Amino acid sequence: MKIIKVRTKPAYEIEIRGGLLTDLAQDLKDRGYGDRYFLITDSNVRQLMAEDLLEMLREAGLPVEILSFPAGEASKNMATVVELARKMVQAGADRRSAIVAFGGGVTGDIAGFLASIYMRGIAYIQIPTTLLAQVDSSVGGKTGVDLPEGKNLLGTFYQPRRVYIDYAVLGLLPLREIRQGLAEVVKYGMIKSQRLFKYLERHSGEIMQLEPEPLEHIIAESCRIKAWVVSKDEKEAGLRRILNFGHTLGHAFEAASAWRLPHGEAVAVGMVAAAKISEKRGLISPEITHRLENLLTSLGLPVRLALELPVSEVLTYLRSDKKARSQWPVFVLVRDIGETVFDPEVPEAMVKEVAEELGCR
Amino acid sequence: MKIIKVRTKPAYEIEIRGGLLTDLAQDLKDRGYGDRYFLITDSNVRQLMAEDLLEMLREAGLPVEILSFPAGEASKNMATVVELARKMVQAGADRRSAIVAFGGGVTGDIAGFLASIYMRGIAYIQIPTTLLAQVDSSVGGKTGVDLPEGKNLLGTFYQPRRVYIDYAVLGLLPLREIRQGLAEVVKYGMIKSQRLFKYLERHSGEIMQLEPEPLEHIIAESCRIKAWVVSKDEKEAGLRRILNFGHTLGHAFEAASAWRLPHGEAVAVGMVAAAKISEKRGLISPEITHRLENLLTSLGLPVRLALELPVSEVLTYLRSDKKARSQWPVFVLVRDIGETVFDPEVPEAMVKEVAEELGCR
Repeated sequence: MKIIKVRTKPAYEIEIRGGLLTDLAQDLKDRGYGDRYFLITDSNVRQLMAEDLLEMLREAGLPVEILSFPAGEASKNMATVVELARKMVQAGADRRSAIVAFGGGVTGDIAGFLASIYMRGIAYIQIPTTLLAQVDSSVGGKTGVDLPEGKNLLGTFYQPRRVYIDYAVLGLLPLREIRQGLAEVVKYGMIKSQRLFKYLERHSGEIMQLEPEPLEHIIAESCRIKAWVVSKDEKEAGLRRILNFGHTLGHAFEAASAWRLPHGEAVAVGMVAAAKISEKRGLISPEITHRLENLLTSLGLPVRLALELPVSEVLTYLRSDKKARSQWPVFVLVRDIGETVFDPEVPEAMVKEVAEELGCR
Repeated sequence: MKIIKVRTKPAYEIEIRGGLLTDLAQDLKDRGYGDRYFLITDSNVRQLMAEDLLEMLREAGLPVEILSFPAGEASKNMATVVELARKMVQAGADRRSAIVAFGGGVTGDIAGFLASIYMRGIAYIQIPTTLLAQVDSSVGGKTGVDLPEGKNLLGTFYQPRRVYIDYAVLGLLPLREIRQGLAEVVKYGMIKSQRLFKYLERHSGEIMQLEPEPLEHIIAESCRIKAWVVSKDEKEAGLRRILNFGHTLGHAFEAASAWRLPHGEAVAVGMVAAAKISEKRGLISPEITHRLENLLTSLGLPVRLALELPVSEVLTYLRSDKKARSQWPVFVLVRDIGETVFDPEVPEAMVKEVAEELGCR
């Protein structure tokens, strides 16, 4: 078991342990986050594991209700939030009720957002069930929903009271789902930890076998790095932008593919792009890019785009990035594994060239 | 001119001055809250004064857009928020844009809520144009919208960067609108300031004539008292509940009238009810209740219900009050003008009796 302390305001802990869901009811009772609990999940996770968890919690005498919404990013909108809120009011949820987000990133975003605005904010516990959610959305307090005009345009910064990560649940998911999370783990190595990067190089085989020890290690290290970054910069003013490594182009690839390209795979190729740009800006040798490509490949992640995306759309998206000042993104580059540099002056022609090397047309 | 400092986190100032809107453009430029400003208002205020303000701001070279929604509480829902958000995205609003809420309580609630969730929070300036909004919603950071199941069920605590109160605009409003705010001013006297109460008794005539000096005085005193309460208890855990004086029954009267009874008038009768309950609980002499009734009357406010409301509905509403623990509200009573007492044990029969004395059937 590992415990990571996240020093946001308010601070909270992430507990990482295989099989911890078995003891969840007792832990929630001991900690008393709410008089009643509302388990929020999507239709897939509900069938796959949430009904079982519900039964276990109820058998242990915890007052808990379950609410779900159709799985998928298409549900991540205000209509879903309003519908869940109305069901909670109808079920008598008040300020002392607590929300348990049980699922992947979309569930965390929706349930966290709902918790942050329900009667102006109620307690909220997160149980991420995908590796991506475990290493990414369990730290940072970002919640939100999409608008037809773009993703995550409405939301809040709202910290959970506690995050429970049970990596035993990962065995229930398809391997492709795991790989989406591994891309983020590689990112943490690239931006902040040569040691984590080397660990991944040495243990990629065991990780792909979902062996408990290396899983616990890489999840804990990822959360630790993200927690460190977020505690230094809760509202995303400066340092936190290093987390965008591989994401600037990654998001553009996702958008240009109309979200057919899964997030982790887009980020994997986005990181290769960032490494190539770092090379061209004279920051690193091609050797670093090769090590990155090799690691991604050994984890089953792509290093080139599998879809032919129009480079013009990728560039258009970059120019409208909501994180960009002055209509062109600040790129997060590396000058070594574990060391980032912000570069606001990457020439558009250079980005175009790299995008084309990676399979854009 | 008066400046009230509100010591929430983050802290902000309320500037109170007749005619300050004339200098608003320069002040916003000097303070630089945003690269662009989005003036949010309702259809009434837009016609009455927001178009003029817009023109003045634009002439002074401030980059500003106007967005409005149909006037009335019926607009206070998530659909309005989403529609305004989409228009902002379409107009290119980003994290450095700022929202200016220009209007009454509904506008402040909607625009403040939108500011708190737009791209996870952007700067927000409040210009309340009704006396009620000036003395009530300009302090406290409460934002929110209604659900079909009840009022203010979704929202946030979000502080404006600055509040501008120009009481000269009150001259544009019908007198009945002013009275809604005066009820809250009387409340501040009742809960915290014998001095303010006496000032109101002495100056009610001038106030009803909207004379600048007494208006500035009572607005500033009201904001000061609310700011003191809110700074002690930002998230409404304890002390802040004294602000509910007159509101526990006031809200119940509003609800039972299906919101035909205006807020301030409901609160006026609610305060008389609270005084009568205080009498019956042996806390005050009838003398205090009479002074309260006289003051309300001299300000054109009712001391009895003008509508015949069913007492059973009033009691049902009280039992479902979302601020109530254990299904029955804690009443805010007084033991003198300016001194409150919390009483969780007011018998239902006593409330029924008082409600009937005030015109319920």
